[in-house]
Amino acid sequence: MKDSAAFDLLTLASRAPHHVHKDDAQRETERIRQDLVELQDRLYAENRRSVLVILQGMDASGKDGLIRKVFSGLNPQGVRVHSFKEPTTEELAHDFLWRVHQQVPRHGMIQVFNRSHYEDVLITRVEQLITTEEARRRFTAINAFEKLLQQAGTTVLKFYLHVSEDEQRERLQERINDPAKQWKYEAGDEAKALKWPLYRAVYEDVFRHCNPDSCPWHLVPADQNWYKAYVVAKTLRDALRELDPQYPASKLDRPKQV
Amino acid sequence: MKDSAAFDLLTLASRAPHHVHKDDAQRETERIRQDLVELQDRLYAENRRSVLVILQGMDASGKDGLIRKVFSGLNPQGVRVHSFKEPTTEELAHDFLWRVHQQVPRHGMIQVFNRSHYEDVLITRVEQLITTEEARRRFTAINAFEKLLQQAGTTVLKFYLHVSEDEQRERLQERINDPAKQWKYEAGDEAKALKWPLYRAVYEDVFRHCNPDSCPWHLVPADQNWYKAYVVAKTLRDALRELDPQYPASKLDRPKQV
Repeated sequence: MKDSAAFDLLTLASRAPHHVHKDDAQRETERIRQDLVELQDRLYAENRRSVLVILQGMDASGKDGLIRKVFSGLNPQGVRVHSFKEPTTEELAHDFLWRVHQQVPRHGMIQVFNRSHYEDVLITRVEQLITTEEARRRFTAINAFEKLLQQAGTTVLKFYLHVSEDEQRERLQERINDPAKQWKYEAGDEAKALKWPLYRAVYEDVFRHCNPDSCPWHLVPADQNWYKAYVVAKTLRDALRELDPQYPASKLDRPKQV
Repeated sequence: MKDSAAFDLLTLASRAPHHVHKDDAQRETERIRQDLVELQDRLYAENRRSVLVILQGMDASGKDGLIRKVFSGLNPQGVRVHSFKEPTTEELAHDFLWRVHQQVPRHGMIQVFNRSHYEDVLITRVEQLITTEEARRRFTAINAFEKLLQQAGTTVLKFYLHVSEDEQRERLQERINDPAKQWKYEAGDEAKALKWPLYRAVYEDVFRHCNPDSCPWHLVPADQNWYKAYVVAKTLRDALRELDPQYPASKLDRPKQV
């Protein structure tokens, strides 16, 4: 994993470093998931702070699979996932952060965004729905929004799942060939693969402008599913350890000796 | 009315200028209300922009009466009023703008805030619930929030209803004496009157720091109800005229001559 200081997606690794072996990483991911169960329980009980996990990545970068892998062992009472789809008419009748703000975590919660407000400065630019000037204004709004959340006790973790252009093309092709994946196929998937270079440009712009210091992006090599699960789980675990949430003091009086 | 460049509340007029006569102003207010009916109808039909009216003022500055006077003739389908009360537990488990953002107007609407996010940098400071440093951070967040709304097509009109310390004391006393007003009395109203100077200080700080140029405060002399209704109605009417909302083109084909 690299952080967002290095933002050239052409030179960014999309595969695990050679010294990391699949078996080791998978075993370690299991251990981390045990840690997460306990840390999440403490975060929920403490009820003072929260975590927002933002998952972005090009089509077929494996966001859905990652969510299943990393979060399915946790207590669902303390974890919520929200997938942002194309905005509705009602959502479009408001500023672009309106629908996003409603979904931020309350104290005690881990909230996962499957896609996010970043779509409003990514696909909208690739499809030329907004100007560069408007994108800049949105960057400013996004930065203020993320600061607001941080100041209210939310740890914001932003992940970009990085698949290479080749790997993306292969995965989109699989959606056509593999019966178990055909439901994921959407008209235009072939066209999307051709847009990798366009997405590359607008993603790099986001990494440069959206709180690179105070709320950095984690750029995750994502061609191998086992490796990205490991990286995201570990980053989340480390952040929770940093928070070190505590069970509140018991509301019972200490039992007297009888 | 003065704008927020002049923010000394001790020297700010709380009564109408001498050349403005009550009868004239009331007649004019009636005319303005006719304008508002038509402008609001056009804003609603156009469905592209919106107006947010923020009403702030110390206790007994007459916000409720003003809302009745200025907005009751308008089509309620296009006008909504939201009163912000003390935050709930659920609201306090989020950043202070979370509940506010949910209430911003969608396209076509006029939204009135009876109190607003400004309470989070007013009463909270008077009651010493937040530090000056936290207030500064909130000013920054508020400024970004208001810019976001403006960029999404919302005209934000901020009114401070200015009652003098004497007038406030008198009105709070009326709540005790007048049977028709006793329901408004709350425990602690007497104590509130003593806080006028404290509120003065934190209000002045807000006027200085919260978008004084791009989203100015309208400081409205409010000791006389007829005058403040006139000023607020006129300011809103002028802003709507500036927007000049248009009925969209008919969806019917132009009828052919028979």
